[in-house]
Amino acid sequence: MAVIVQKYGGSSVETIEKMRKIAERVILEKKRGHSLVVVVSAMGKTTNQLIQIARSVTENPNKRELDMLVSTGEQVSISLLAMILQSAGYDSVSLTGFQAGIQTEGIHTKNRIIDIDVKRIQKYLNQGKIVIVAGFQGINTAGDITTLGRGGSDTTAVALAAKLQTRCEIYTDVDGIYAVDPRIYAGAKKLDAVFYEEMMEMASLGAKVMEPRAVEIGQKYKVPIYVAASHKTTRGTYIKERDETMEQKGVTGITVSDHVAMITVNHVPYMVQNIALIFERLGRQDVNLDMISQTPPTAGFVNLSFTASQEDELVIDQIMADLEKEMPTIQVVKDLEISKISVVGIGMRNLSGVAARVFKLFANHQIEFKQVTTSEISISYTISIQDQEKAVRILAEAFDL
Amino acid sequence: MAVIVQKYGGSSVETIEKMRKIAERVILEKKRGHSLVVVVSAMGKTTNQLIQIARSVTENPNKRELDMLVSTGEQVSISLLAMILQSAGYDSVSLTGFQAGIQTEGIHTKNRIIDIDVKRIQKYLNQGKIVIVAGFQGINTAGDITTLGRGGSDTTAVALAAKLQTRCEIYTDVDGIYAVDPRIYAGAKKLDAVFYEEMMEMASLGAKVMEPRAVEIGQKYKVPIYVAASHKTTRGTYIKERDETMEQKGVTGITVSDHVAMITVNHVPYMVQNIALIFERLGRQDVNLDMISQTPPTAGFVNLSFTASQEDELVIDQIMADLEKEMPTIQVVKDLEISKISVVGIGMRNLSGVAARVFKLFANHQIEFKQVTTSEISISYTISIQDQEKAVRILAEAFDL
Repeated sequence: MAVIVQKYGGSSVETIEKMRKIAERVILEKKRGHSLVVVVSAMGKTTNQLIQIARSVTENPNKRELDMLVSTGEQVSISLLAMILQSAGYDSVSLTGFQAGIQTEGIHTKNRIIDIDVKRIQKYLNQGKIVIVAGFQGINTAGDITTLGRGGSDTTAVALAAKLQTRCEIYTDVDGIYAVDPRIYAGAKKLDAVFYEEMMEMASLGAKVMEPRAVEIGQKYKVPIYVAASHKTTRGTYIKERDETMEQKGVTGITVSDHVAMITVNHVPYMVQNIALIFERLGRQDVNLDMISQTPPTAGFVNLSFTASQEDELVIDQIMADLEKEMPTIQVVKDLEISKISVVGIGMRNLSGVAARVFKLFANHQIEFKQVTTSEISISYTISIQDQEKAVRILAEAFDL
Repeated sequence: MAVIVQKYGGSSVETIEKMRKIAERVILEKKRGHSLVVVVSAMGKTTNQLIQIARSVTENPNKRELDMLVSTGEQVSISLLAMILQSAGYDSVSLTGFQAGIQTEGIHTKNRIIDIDVKRIQKYLNQGKIVIVAGFQGINTAGDITTLGRGGSDTTAVALAAKLQTRCEIYTDVDGIYAVDPRIYAGAKKLDAVFYEEMMEMASLGAKVMEPRAVEIGQKYKVPIYVAASHKTTRGTYIKERDETMEQKGVTGITVSDHVAMITVNHVPYMVQNIALIFERLGRQDVNLDMISQTPPTAGFVNLSFTASQEDELVIDQIMADLEKEMPTIQVVKDLEISKISVVGIGMRNLSGVAARVFKLFANHQIEFKQVTTSEISISYTISIQDQEKAVRILAEAFDL
């Protein structure tokens, strides 16, 4: 009687019909004798629609109230899924984030899970109930409803699996993890397994399949994760601990991120406190910076570049407008025509030649890159969005992905 | 710095535009120096739409899950109203039922408030915040989200006013309490004031303006209630304690209820346990019975009639179908073409002639009645729905309403 945590994303529960299909899948596992905790997102595009309504009220809606509003999305889907299961004769119970004991902290709309009190879930599981939990949401110590930010339902599911010491199945609209996004490179190969570290890199570098924080929690608590299609039965991809006996492949995958904003702040007076101030302001608003580069000081000034998600564009604009008032010398340039290509693989640690090979491939094909950063298991390049498709094709062919 | 509790119903917050108007009204009172607790219902027909969705999932949705689903309606409206107030520069905070400390008990979809822990509301009021509370919902001791049944937002508002020891203003789409429903009798007069007892009779007898439970709580805790139009500034109606010095009017108002189902159970074997069984079954499903009548036993059988709300029709059908299996002699007849007309007034206690006068008026105009019941301050008649309009006109003219 193992407990399984399953997670179904928004596109998997878009309509009542799709929900009925999900219910069948849940019932199948229940019949096999498993105890089930099912995490669901809001139906289809509900979350975005609710955000649109809030924006129609005011350009910059209060974030606590935005969380209050947006969290209704999952509350609708959990109650409907529970009704479907109940009417099929399977005892089930839905729980909002606060009812499921999901405690969070941080700024509204981007909270982090700090702990989960699974007593109530465990009580229902012991009673034989299927427990349906609202993804993406929790409650903070002030008793306010919070949300976990984009992809937060993955985090909910993996964190629950960690607390319940079991495995986590993520069902989504793609049928696993691909070496390259098949929408960008049609010949992409599906992976049978990836290691947490690789997936984390790929996730944070733009692969849309899974939220990096979720993978991080998975790694930390050794939660076996399985990613597969919600409405097909094809084999998916396992995300698991590194296995030394596995054949070491140089490059596991390529990820592409095209919602990148590159901001260049020219002519910053070269003093440590100025640079610090810029990043402090960005950090205070929880802007996730990605690549950062700085020119050597010339005549007491430096040029600073960083990339961030276009989601944070409005916040960054406001911060930059304020900074321009405080530091009259600076000039801010924003470039949204940017794509970030990353080459990821555990094996790269031993294969320092990968970087050189990419530089050479780019040079041979006249692809200019603006910034390069490396991590232990990845190399990322920002390039013009016009070169994106070409770059992916060249790399996928070269590394047999 | 008095605290005022204001309540706005669904039609008052139907659109963002209407909500902005409500916000202006709230801000006006805030500027006058009052502390404000604002109770809101779900926007427009949201509650019914959510129930429709649940019904599209399954004919008889699980009630706990229905409460989970339906309670999202107010959560949307409170967050939007709080955003509007915030963006106008007025610090405000929205609270769901559980966050507002509203503790309930009973069966799902028809819970009763047992207590309200107003600590959190009071803390926010002390901080100068406008507190927006979700009407119609609470939390039970099991930690499940509950709803209070039809008109529950009135109950939330009056109960909050009772706990906060202050007055309650109910803003709605009619501009006060009328002696007769103006949609039925165009010449109806608006009342400046009614007593709790009268309003309670009128409310439970079908006046749609206010929920009877809300008036009952108002009477019990001596909460002054003011009912007025949400989008006009015309003078409304006060609901208050009986005032001996006021001129005693024989009849204060007439109420009409046309969602009545009259059920007749013919040929019931005359044993106390049979009659008890019927009402026990109805009671267990929380069917609110209204008039009950029974014929004298003939050859060991009786005929039993009762009226109930048509809302409970499906539940009653099921109960009756079960009873027909258990007591093969009985025959159940359902009549939905029924209207209930009630004549209400505190002064009637001293004016026993009212009943006689109504009987005479009905006889003169060939209006047949099926059942008659009396309370201390009202007389109710069930008549055929075809006679409804005529009956109301005759009574309103006769009693100068």
